[in-house]
Amino acid sequence: MDAETPSLLAARYGTAPDTALPLPANPVIEALLAHRSVRAFLPDALPAGTLEILAAAAQSASTSSNVQAWSLVAVTEPGLKARLAELSGRQAFIARAPLFLAFVADTSRLRRLGARHGNPMEGLDYLEAFIVASVDAALASQNAVVAAEALGLGTVYVGALRNKPEEVAAELNLPPGAVALFGLCVGRPDPAAPASVKPRLPQAAVLHRERYDSAAEEAAVAQYDETLKAFSLSQGIGPAGWVGRMLSRMADAAALHGRDGMKPALRRLGFPLR
Amino acid sequence: MDAETPSLLAARYGTAPDTALPLPANPVIEALLAHRSVRAFLPDALPAGTLEILAAAAQSASTSSNVQAWSLVAVTEPGLKARLAELSGRQAFIARAPLFLAFVADTSRLRRLGARHGNPMEGLDYLEAFIVASVDAALASQNAVVAAEALGLGTVYVGALRNKPEEVAAELNLPPGAVALFGLCVGRPDPAAPASVKPRLPQAAVLHRERYDSAAEEAAVAQYDETLKAFSLSQGIGPAGWVGRMLSRMADAAALHGRDGMKPALRRLGFPLR
Repeated sequence: MDAETPSLLAARYGTAPDTALPLPANPVIEALLAHRSVRAFLPDALPAGTLEILAAAAQSASTSSNVQAWSLVAVTEPGLKARLAELSGRQAFIARAPLFLAFVADTSRLRRLGARHGNPMEGLDYLEAFIVASVDAALASQNAVVAAEALGLGTVYVGALRNKPEEVAAELNLPPGAVALFGLCVGRPDPAAPASVKPRLPQAAVLHRERYDSAAEEAAVAQYDETLKAFSLSQGIGPAGWVGRMLSRMADAAALHGRDGMKPALRRLGFPLR
Repeated sequence: MDAETPSLLAARYGTAPDTALPLPANPVIEALLAHRSVRAFLPDALPAGTLEILAAAAQSASTSSNVQAWSLVAVTEPGLKARLAELSGRQAFIARAPLFLAFVADTSRLRRLGARHGNPMEGLDYLEAFIVASVDAALASQNAVVAAEALGLGTVYVGALRNKPEEVAAELNLPPGAVALFGLCVGRPDPAAPASVKPRLPQAAVLHRERYDSAAEEAAVAQYDETLKAFSLSQGIGPAGWVGRMLSRMADAAALHGRDGMKPALRRLGFPLR
């Protein structure tokens, strides 16, 4: 690869890559490697046609058996964005992004189709249908992210949209069988607050060959904890590592910020999860 | 946009776009719009470094709170690929692809971390943890798809890897708290069997502005059913529309090919799904 890819890999892993990768430089892959979440946006509205091309890119992702069990709600109204920000852990950047996309795991379209044809669509009652809808929505959203970044825009996912799923469903007028799985802020990055590439776990902890093998994991995690501490220091947020963050993030139900209630909430929203 | 984007949109929606999109041409977006699933591969092994760069692209996707709750098992052994093909609805193309990637929703790495620190990691017991792991895995996989296509490779997702999740977990040596969520075949497309862009639902059925509104849906679905019938005829598979396919795909538990058992299977695999 050319000079760019090794430095992108070094940023992505917070360390020099183990081996030089014997591949030609590729601008699309370099763009993927350079991804960073953006939380500081200029207030400018996006150019006309941006939403439609992001939606077309999202719809171009694969979907399980072509069921297309997802929908997109595009929010630009300031009041609605502010209420969604309030419901999503009061993250102010949500209200400041010119465009907020709610990615909806959506079995309701198939439910309505079944109702018009007198078909009970019992398959939609199973956890599997929620998995299909969630994976469909996630594949679509990642294409939207890649497309937005190709247009020079920045994005950040908002998992906290699941903190209060029923209130969010009411704000977005979601029908039964639909839930806002996560949000995505989209806007022009504020050049005064540039975002950095966040290092990830070494490949030794994530990539397995032929069969899963965690033998290299403990050392890889220890190395990564140091990498992330150094990265956090470089970002002015103190020596915050990965291990401590994960241990507190998953310690108990209270750490889930209300999302321990996802199962009963999903049932009330029309996902029986059999 | 230039001459390429309108024709890509026409293929993606099986009809001319409603309006010309007033955006400059963008090669990344054109690549996303041109996606098609590939099931016919040349047998050639992939160039050295391909797997590692796909994994790096996948790891560059966003992950909920940086938990990175997914793993990748890369399978090239012919015998193992053949057994996974057998477990995945006997889809022969799985065994013929030179590389099969199993995307794993993986809470086990965090479980092991907790065990080393005496932390019960109760948060992982909730359905929310499975959602986080599934979305993480899906975002990562879509980056891998975009990267593979940028390298001239073809891919197809294999949701049927969920038909027999416990048998697949045993083949891949997955630890408790990990499940193979779906597979991805990767290889050089066989030019003798080119794949086509499959049309998707009109944006009127998927994209909502400010709030969900299904008023335009029935007409959009009827139009799409005709579009897909024409596409199916062009592919030599008869006038198969979308409505009939969906009604049979979701009619009842039997149509799920065993995936109606996902919930108990996930519990046995170490996802309590509270």
